[in-house]
Formats: sequence, structure tokens, C-alpha cells
Amino acid sequence: MRISELSRQTGVPIPTIKFYLRERLLPPGEVTGRNQAQYGDCHRRRLRFIRALTDIGQLDLSSVRLLLSAIEDECVPTSDLLEIVYRMLFPGGSTQDDNAETRQAQIDVGKFIGSLGWQVHSDAPGHARLVQVLAAMRRLGCDCGADFFAPYAEVAERLAVRQLDLVEANHDVDRAGAVARAVLLDGALSALLSMAQDHHVALRFGRPTADPGPG
Amino acid sequence: MRISELSRQTGVPIPTIKFYLRERLLPPGEVTGRNQAQYGDCHRRRLRFIRALTDIGQLDLSSVRLLLSAIEDECVPTSDLLEIVYRMLFPGGSTQDDNAETRQAQIDVGKFIGSLGWQVHSDAPGHARLVQVLAAMRRLGCDCGADFFAPYAEVAERLAVRQLDLVEANHDVDRAGAVARAVLLDGALSALLSMAQDHHVALRFGRPTADPGPG
Repeated sequence: MRISELSRQTGVPIPTIKFYLRERLLPPGEVTGRNQAQYGDCHRRRLRFIRALTDIGQLDLSSVRLLLSAIEDECVPTSDLLEIVYRMLFPGGSTQDDNAETRQAQIDVGKFIGSLGWQVHSDAPGHARLVQVLAAMRRLGCDCGADFFAPYAEVAERLAVRQLDLVEANHDVDRAGAVARAVLLDGALSALLSMAQDHHVALRFGRPTADPGPG
Repeated sequence: MRISELSRQTGVPIPTIKFYLRERLLPPGEVTGRNQAQYGDCHRRRLRFIRALTDIGQLDLSSVRLLLSAIEDECVPTSDLLEIVYRMLFPGGSTQDDNAETRQAQIDVGKFIGSLGWQVHSDAPGHARLVQVLAAMRRLGCDCGADFFAPYAEVAERLAVRQLDLVEANHDVDRAGAVARAVLLDGALSALLSMAQDHHVALRFGRPTADPGPG
């Protein structure tokens, strides 16, 4: 198909497709004439994959490029591939203070994660973030131990397992598909959580109506 | 206390405190002499609150300012306050395409949310995002209905309710506390999910060791 048809079918504007071609995120089409090329199924799939990562995963193009080369590099095992994409989806970096509260929170979170039986490095971004959260809660006056998070941990674990069940399907033959599913399911979860929050905030605290009417 | 002591106790550098004072995110201290002021408990609490929002919630200062004025404005009901903060925490905006797949996904997601009994506007950011996810999944070859997300919705609902139980405590007297708890619990959940993903990816796909040994 021509580039105009590729644009129509994927909803990606022609200038964006040309940009992806120049940046080699998309392989070149088959040249059929001066300033003309034909594109196929693989281009359409690749474009949809890129858009899932940028639109829903909110990943930038350098992350997309890194993922594409990791997918194509057979030396990168699927475990590393998924670790890379999950870390990209984890929101923001974390600045770690060095003070008494943070050090105590570090110890407490380490013990808590150990008690869950999770094999997680203490330099994993999620670990650093939970340390920050616990230290902040205590500074704000909450007298809580790390086991305060136990019910959340249980839910998080079930979610992670369920995500992997879905991500895993055919992961050995379709590594791009596994990455796309990881991104999409992450997007679905945060969307559903946001809607559930909307609904329950309104339910619990009452949403003021625009016109309360007489009385 | 002097600004140096305030900095020591909160871990916020003096230039940052001065910036917050200039930007009126922090009320001025009590002037005690030329170029000297005293700060109290309220300054310490406010600084910790701001840092929880910026470090863990990854909110920018204009969002922090908006939240601070909403907290202080008694005309803003708690439901609106929480809706504002949850929307700020929801990752990224969403660009909505107008094409056949998106329109069909819009209809399907609307029905699905209705079947859950959730009162959520179709222009809520979570709604738009789920539409995007469903359309993308179908474009990538997944033959799924919106009820594919039902197990996630159930978990999301339980999480939202649990969060609100914790956020709600004393919300009528401590609105800043309710906002801080919403931000911190959101941070804790994403941290735990990230760690659970790390753990289960390694468990399921095996993490290659640095030295595989002989054989």
C-alpha cells in the first residue's frame, strides 16, 4: 500500500510516519519509483505497536527505540525484556534523602518485602519509592509499620500474576506482542482505578449537583 | 526555629525553602530582625506536605499551589478535592482518535462501565484511556470484549474503596492530611505493583545468573 493508505489504516498522520522512517523506527518501504514506496502488513503492525507504547504507555521515542532493539535482539531474554518495559512504565525517578527516618524506613521496608518472600533488589525503583512513602507517612504523623501496606501488597501480587498470565501467551514467538500487552494492561489498570476512584469518591462524599433544587 | 533548623528537620535545602517562600507556597515566618525570621510547626508540616506531593506524587508546583488553595477554600467540598488530586495523579493525557475502532470501543466501554454500576462520565480521563486501550488491543489482533477487563475492574474497585477508607479518616478536620494520604497510598500501590512485577517476572521467566557456570 502507499503511505497515504498506511496513514488512513493506522490513524497515524503522514508526517509522523515520515519522521518514524527517518528515525528508523519503521523499516523503509519497497521503492517502486521516484519518491514512491510500498508498505505492507509489517509496517502497519509496527506503527500500531509504536502508537500503543507512546499513546497508552506514554513512552518517549528513545524508550520505544530501546524496546524495539531489545525485542529484535535474541540475546535479550524475555525476563529482561519485561523488566525493561515495567521499569519504563514505573512513574518517575526517586530522590533518596539520607536521614534517620529514611534509614529506618529502608530497614522496615526491607524486612517487609523479605516477609512477603519477594526477591526484589533494594535498589529497585519500587523499593526506593516505598521507602520514601513510609518515611513521608511517618513525618506526616502516621504511626505505621511497613506491614500497613500488607493488604496492598497482596492485591499487587495478584495483579502482577494475572498480568503475566496474559502477557506470557506466545511470548517466545511474539515478543513484541508480550511487550504491547504489558503496556496495554498497565494502561487498563490505571484507567480502571481512576474510574473506580471517581465513582467511590462521589458515592461516599456525595457529588454536589449543579442545581440542588428547592428546599 | 531559624530557617537553617527548618531545613535540617525537613531535609529541604534552604534555597528551596526560600523559593517556596517567594512563591507563597509557604507562609512568611515571624520577622525577628533584619534578614531574620522564625518558623514554626505549621511551616514544618507545610514543607513536608509539599515534598510528599512533589517527591512521591510527582506533581509540579502549579498543581501543588492549586491543591493548597482548594484545601484552604471551604467552599470546595472534600469530594471535589479528592477528585482533583486523583485526576492529577492519573498519568498523562489522552489523544482520542475518531475512527471506527475507537467509536466501537467507546460504545463497548460505556456498556461495560454501566454493567459495573459505576457512575463515571464518558469524558473522565480513565474512561477515555480504557477506550484507547481496548481499541489498541483489537488493532493488535486481540479479539476481546470490554468484559475482558472485568477481573481488573473488580480489583480496582476494592483498591479504591480501601484507599478511601484510609484517606477518609478525619477528612473534615484535616483536608491536607486526606490529600497527602491519597498521594502517598497511590505511590505505595505503584511501588508494590512494580516490585511484584519484578519478583514474578524473575520467578516465571527465570533471571539469568551473571555466571551460568560450567555445562
